[in-house]
Amino acid sequence: MRTPAFPNLTIIGCGLLGGSLAAAWRHAGCVGSVTGYDRDSRTLARAVELGIVDRAAPSLAAAVGAADCIALALPVCAISASFAELAQHAPPGAICTDVGSTKVGILAAARQGLGSRYALFVPGHPIAGGALPGVEQARKDLFDARWVITTPDGATDPAALERVELCWRACGASIERMSAAEHDRIFAAVSHLPHLIAFVLMHQLACQADGARKLRFAGAGFRDFTRIAASDPAMWRDIALANREALLGELQNFRSGLDELQAALAAGDGVALDALFEQASRARRAQNFAPGATNAYDD
Amino acid sequence: MRTPAFPNLTIIGCGLLGGSLAAAWRHAGCVGSVTGYDRDSRTLARAVELGIVDRAAPSLAAAVGAADCIALALPVCAISASFAELAQHAPPGAICTDVGSTKVGILAAARQGLGSRYALFVPGHPIAGGALPGVEQARKDLFDARWVITTPDGATDPAALERVELCWRACGASIERMSAAEHDRIFAAVSHLPHLIAFVLMHQLACQADGARKLRFAGAGFRDFTRIAASDPAMWRDIALANREALLGELQNFRSGLDELQAALAAGDGVALDALFEQASRARRAQNFAPGATNAYDD
Repeated sequence: MRTPAFPNLTIIGCGLLGGSLAAAWRHAGCVGSVTGYDRDSRTLARAVELGIVDRAAPSLAAAVGAADCIALALPVCAISASFAELAQHAPPGAICTDVGSTKVGILAAARQGLGSRYALFVPGHPIAGGALPGVEQARKDLFDARWVITTPDGATDPAALERVELCWRACGASIERMSAAEHDRIFAAVSHLPHLIAFVLMHQLACQADGARKLRFAGAGFRDFTRIAASDPAMWRDIALANREALLGELQNFRSGLDELQAALAAGDGVALDALFEQASRARRAQNFAPGATNAYDD
Repeated sequence: MRTPAFPNLTIIGCGLLGGSLAAAWRHAGCVGSVTGYDRDSRTLARAVELGIVDRAAPSLAAAVGAADCIALALPVCAISASFAELAQHAPPGAICTDVGSTKVGILAAARQGLGSRYALFVPGHPIAGGALPGVEQARKDLFDARWVITTPDGATDPAALERVELCWRACGASIERMSAAEHDRIFAAVSHLPHLIAFVLMHQLACQADGARKLRFAGAGFRDFTRIAASDPAMWRDIALANREALLGELQNFRSGLDELQAALAAGDGVALDALFEQASRARRAQNFAPGATNAYDD
């Protein structure tokens, strides 16, 4: 039997993504034993019961002591906040990676918090999720046929980068490398902005005096359009703040489009509406989406 | 065997909705024979082949000549445009109904076009659809456990209203009566505005220089959020124009919500973002949607 890429994996955060990472990498033969830490002790105990984690550690410091690879599967702000402690306790040579949905802020925090260990940090973002949060929902095939974005910079150790990418590929994922800045612009446009719009639509409807009556008659189109508005508020607050600059830019693009629509509508300009809808519809029909997860905890 | 509510039903427009109405009402024992007309002769021939229509008529005039009930299953503008011709050719006493997504404009057109026959017009809007357009997609259970909104006014004949509502109920639908104005406000909020937002989001993304690259990494959240942007552009242009006033009002509500979000984001105000997302998420989680159709031709 070949040696796994990482004999000792530690996951910090044992939720849907951390649990799935551990299960998928293990199933692919990329890891030997898995140590886990979660600040919620029930989650951690459940991860052990489910066989996702072999050893539950009582603290982050204890969890990383013998790790070859440390995967940070926390909300984006918590990832950024964990680097200094990691730098103190992780063995020299341990590779660190993450699954955060924003990258510029995490890289900056890693540069500061990890210091000389920064070269061994491999920033990652798997574009995958499940219908519900929690370790109970973890699946070893969650990353199959999904993108995993890596955002190394000039300081990233090439061998560390390749070892982490190898694990993701072994789970069936496709890797795309890009800069953290490009990553954040892309996901501001195709993930963060749509979430924010869905939140705003639900929010303003819920604020209307007859909002409840209106919502009573919402159909399947509304259901799918607003599905992501059921997402975890705290998680999305963190993402919005962490990716504020790119998000404000994309919000401006969207508002320009709204202005165009509103002008055409106010003028009763059917030709302009037709052109806008036609281009949108063609662009949407050209999209090919992988089958799979449909949920509030993806992207 | 009891007498059907309508021995002779005529459907004008043999697409997904017209075909499903005919199939569902027939299956429920509410109609005897079905005459159909569609300006696309292939659609009409297909409706006959599928057994949805018993007799294909060569024109609207010929289609309605012997009808007890005439169901208009056309785009909203075409419904409004058909009343004058209907008034000329329909037998006295024939009840007319429709499935249009906007109601104020259709009632005004009916009042003008139908003249003294206006009392026998029962304005309706089934909140149902299918994954794809076309008579091939017609299903006799399309309206099961769905809302059908009727928007009678003071001039509507109560017996005609009840006969049409009886047919819908026999197909498993729930009836809600409301004014045309309330209908249009409700569906501006929960159907038309979401469609327009989805169109705008796709439109402005497709216009960006790196739009194609961004779209490459869109995940399941984006897929569901923009599904309705694949809808038929001409159909939605008509709906937008027909429901312009209510839609401009809802657009303004939405823009106020966007302003609130943008201000919080620009200020880095996590507490305000949290409150907005929290309220939205709670409202969305409280929604109960019927299982079923998920598509671009619903609502």
